Amino acid sequence: MLPDRIRSLSYLLTRLPGVGEKTAQRFALHLVSDGLDLANDLGAALCDLQAHIGLCEKCGNIAERQAEAAANAPALLCSICLDDDRDRSTLCVVARVQDLLALERSGAVQGLYFVLGALLSPLEGIGPEQLPLDHLRRRLSEDAISEVILATPPSVDGEATALFLGQELESASVAVTRIASGIPHGGDLEFADQITLGRAIRGRRGMAGKP
Amino acid sequence: MLPDRIRSLSYLLTRLPGVGEKTAQRFALHLVSDGLDLANDLGAALCDLQAHIGLCEKCGNIAERQAEAAANAPALLCSICLDDDRDRSTLCVVARVQDLLALERSGAVQGLYFVLGALLSPLEGIGPEQLPLDHLRRRLSEDAISEVILATPPSVDGEATALFLGQELESASVAVTRIASGIPHGGDLEFADQITLGRAIRGRRGMAGKP
Repeated sequence: MLPDRIRSLSYLLTRLPGVGEKTAQRFALHLVSDGLDLANDLGAALCDLQAHIGLCEKCGNIAERQAEAAANAPALLCSICLDDDRDRSTLCVVARVQDLLALERSGAVQGLYFVLGALLSPLEGIGPEQLPLDHLRRRLSEDAISEVILATPPSVDGEATALFLGQELESASVAVTRIASGIPHGGDLEFADQITLGRAIRGRRGMAGKP
Repeated sequence: MLPDRIRSLSYLLTRLPGVGEKTAQRFALHLVSDGLDLANDLGAALCDLQAHIGLCEKCGNIAERQAEAAANAPALLCSICLDDDRDRSTLCVVARVQDLLALERSGAVQGLYFVLGALLSPLEGIGPEQLPLDHLRRRLSEDAISEVILATPPSVDGEATALFLGQELESASVAVTRIASGIPHGGDLEFADQITLGRAIRGRRGMAGKP
């Protein structure tokens, strides 16, 4: 009933996270009945990305190619890796760019980042060979990193990945730390699950910053 | 923290129905971290729309421009208006293309359509002058319509629009009907609101099709 082009547009839109068939069709119809202004603007913005946006070759964060730099094509680096004020001896390993952005918003990380792009997941068929381990090791030696903070999420996959990375980096001469897991700020002990409560107790620290 | 291009892409995505800032940023990051394949495909599909998709000049439905037709540029007509098997004496007036598609899925309408594109709404500043009344009148005379079915939704705005159109078409020599409003199929009288119950009683019909 709908023209083929609208149906193929809907199909592409279902590949966005959390968008099902109905929502995709709603988006597609909105884009068409809106007089095509939004469709044109959005289309241009998306087509424009390839030439100007890429992943940072150092950390995997989203990076913008500078217009003048495109000619002689140097390494594409993100604003964090280019920032001379960052602590270049600490490397925070995260699963996704979204996690990097969340940590940046918190202001808690002074160092640089390394985006894995994947977590170990037997269910999804992601094994150690899919992790950028060589790249991470090269990063450690090249940048004289003294501490690696494993900031993968405290989920089954995230814990497995942290454990694996911890073992792999044992031989390297860097301190390897793991982010704390416990009751979140404002959270309720009453409603916390048993694993979180267990971690909160086992991960307890001395008061007033004493260890 | 995010490159300007990603932020302007996010902003454009917030103009999709039901998409807020957080969802838009999630879409934008997904489009970038997905290796840009989806971004390129989606961008091309959107840029492609302008040349091939438009609104039917007769009824306002979504229509696809045929490649061979583009050269001599005749009127752009949708598949329903071009279908010779439809009942060309009945015109079903709907508010939006989405409503037309829902009615088509039901198979209940044999005739042709007319998409208003708006409903009377004092709150949104939409008055009678924003309704395509001249176009509707022209349609009635040109196409020898004998019945107009007012299928605007049974909401405040939809009822006001139906009432207004009913008055405006009084002088035209066509039967003007309004879709039934009442308890939906499978609905429960216990949980129906008073207005719906009132309409169900007032709109009662004789059993076995008797009036």
